Amino acid sequence: MAFSLQPSAFILHLNLIEKALNKALPSQHVLPKTIHRAMRYSLLAGGKRLRPLLCLAAAEACSNRENILKEVMPVACALECLHTYSLIHDDLPAMDDDDLRRGKPTSHKVFGEGIAILAGDALLTRSFELLSQITPPKRYPLIKFLQEMSVAAGSQQLIAGQVADLEAEGKKVTLADVRFIHERKTAAMIVLSLRLGGMMANATPKQLKALTKFGKALGLAFQIIDDILDVTQSSAQLGKSAGKDLAAKKATYPAIIGLEASRRKAAKLTAASDQALRDFGPRGKMLGLFAQELLKRPS
Amino acid sequence: MAFSLQPSAFILHLNLIEKALNKALPSQHVLPKTIHRAMRYSLLAGGKRLRPLLCLAAAEACSNRENILKEVMPVACALECLHTYSLIHDDLPAMDDDDLRRGKPTSHKVFGEGIAILAGDALLTRSFELLSQITPPKRYPLIKFLQEMSVAAGSQQLIAGQVADLEAEGKKVTLADVRFIHERKTAAMIVLSLRLGGMMANATPKQLKALTKFGKALGLAFQIIDDILDVTQSSAQLGKSAGKDLAAKKATYPAIIGLEASRRKAAKLTAASDQALRDFGPRGKMLGLFAQELLKRPS
Repeated sequence: MAFSLQPSAFILHLNLIEKALNKALPSQHVLPKTIHRAMRYSLLAGGKRLRPLLCLAAAEACSNRENILKEVMPVACALECLHTYSLIHDDLPAMDDDDLRRGKPTSHKVFGEGIAILAGDALLTRSFELLSQITPPKRYPLIKFLQEMSVAAGSQQLIAGQVADLEAEGKKVTLADVRFIHERKTAAMIVLSLRLGGMMANATPKQLKALTKFGKALGLAFQIIDDILDVTQSSAQLGKSAGKDLAAKKATYPAIIGLEASRRKAAKLTAASDQALRDFGPRGKMLGLFAQELLKRPS
Repeated sequence: MAFSLQPSAFILHLNLIEKALNKALPSQHVLPKTIHRAMRYSLLAGGKRLRPLLCLAAAEACSNRENILKEVMPVACALECLHTYSLIHDDLPAMDDDDLRRGKPTSHKVFGEGIAILAGDALLTRSFELLSQITPPKRYPLIKFLQEMSVAAGSQQLIAGQVADLEAEGKKVTLADVRFIHERKTAAMIVLSLRLGGMMANATPKQLKALTKFGKALGLAFQIIDDILDVTQSSAQLGKSAGKDLAAKKATYPAIIGLEASRRKAAKLTAASDQALRDFGPRGKMLGLFAQELLKRPS
C-alpha cells in the first residue's frame, strides 16, 4: 500500500467493508473457477478502500439512522469493484504495463492477459449487479444511482481520463491536460463515492452539493499526492513500481510544476475540501479525518 | 456479415435500430475523440443486429401498443452495445486474436490494443447507462432489468462462456464443454434480448417463460450454425477469418459430432423454438421468421 489510512476511527468501517467485499463476489469454487479466483485475487488484495470508506462516511454525514452502514454497503462494494476493474485494465501491457499492484503481482502476471481482461470486465459488470441490491431512499430512485454510476464510469469521465493518460505518454503535456486526466480518472470516482453514499442517506440537495464540492477538491489533492509519492518513495514503500510515471514521461503535477508547488497545491485543495464540510457539523467528522489523513501521507 | 437476415419483414425494424444506434453514443467530436471514434467504429460497423431485432420482436409479440417499438429501443441499443463490447474484447490478441470482424479490421488493428480494451469497457458501461433511459412497465420495475442484464453479462454467463472457450483451446473437449460455452456465450444473450423485450411490453409470466424457452433453443441453434459456417465458408463470405475455430482446435459442434449431425441438431432446435411460439398466435410471426431465417443460412 502506498500509505496506511487506518487510524482507530476507520477500523470499524474497514472491517465491515472487508467482510462485505468477501461476500460481494461468487466463491472461488463457482465455475469457471479461474474467473472467480482472478476477481477475488484483485478485489481482496488489500488496498486503502478509500472509495467505500468515503461512501460510508458521506452516508453517516447525512443520516444518523442506525442501519445506514448496512444499507449503503452494496453501493460501497460496487464502488470498490469498479475501482478494481479500472486498476486491472490500467495495469495491462497495452496500458501502463505494470507488474506490481498493492504489493502483489498484477492480475495479468498471475492469470495471463486474457483472464485479466475478463476479470476486469466481470468486476465492472458485477458493480452494476450490486447496485440492484439496494433499497433506494425516498428522494433518489434506483434510476438516479444507475445514471450517476454509469456516467462517472463512462467514456466522458473515468474512461476519458484513462484515454487522455494513454495519449499523453511521451508527449509534452500542459497543466490543463494533467487536470483533465486527474479530474476524470480519480476525482470523478471520489465524487461518485460521496454522492452515492449521500444519496443512500437521503441527503438534501444542499448536502449533496457540499459533498460534490468536497469530493472535487479531495480527489484532485489525492491524485497530486499520489504523483508526489511516485517521485519520492521506493517501490517497497509504494507497493508498486516507483518512478514509473517519470520514466514513462507521464503527465504528473511534479513533472510540470515541480515538487514543492505540487505539495502547496495539495495542501490548498485539502483546506478547500475541509471548508466544504462546515455545514455537516460533527457528523462530517469522519470525512474531515480523510482530508487530514491524506496530507499526513509520507511525502 | 456471415449471412444476410434482411427479408422485407425486418427492414422497418432494422432501419429504426440503425437510427437509434447512431444516436445511442456520443458523437465522434466529443472528447476524447479517440474513444468515441472507436466505440462508433465497432457499434456502427453493420452486423446482423440479431439481439435488438429479437428484443423488438419479443416486445411486439407481447403488446400491440403503438409506441412499443419506440419504448423498447433504449433496451435494444443496450443489448447491441453489450454484444459489441464482447466482440471487441473477444477479438483481442490475448483472446481469439482476430484481424477481421464484420468484414472490417478489428478494433485493436485500427486503434491499438489499449484503446480497443477501453472501447469495450466504455460500450459495456454505456449499455447500463442506456438502461437508465427506459420507462419501466407496471409488472417489471427497473431493478428487474438491471438484475437480468448484469447477471446475463456477468461472470457466470457471458463471461463464463468466454473463459471456458479460452480454456478449451488446444484441449480435448466433450460435448458437455461445448454446450456449457454456447449456452453462456450465445444463448444467454439471446434469451436476455427476448426477455427484456417481453418485459418492456409488460409480458405475462407465461409469455416470459415461452420467450425464454424459444430463446434457449434458438440461441444454441444459432451458435451451432455459426460453427458450421466456419467450416464450410470462405473468409470473404464470412466477413471474418474462416477455419479459425478448426485451426485453433476450438470447441465446436462440427469438430465433435461431425457436420451432418450438427446440421440435424440445429434443425431440431429450430423446430423446438418454433413450438415455443404457439401461444403467441399471429403476434409471434416475426419471432417465427427468425427461426426460419436461421436455418436458411447457406451451410
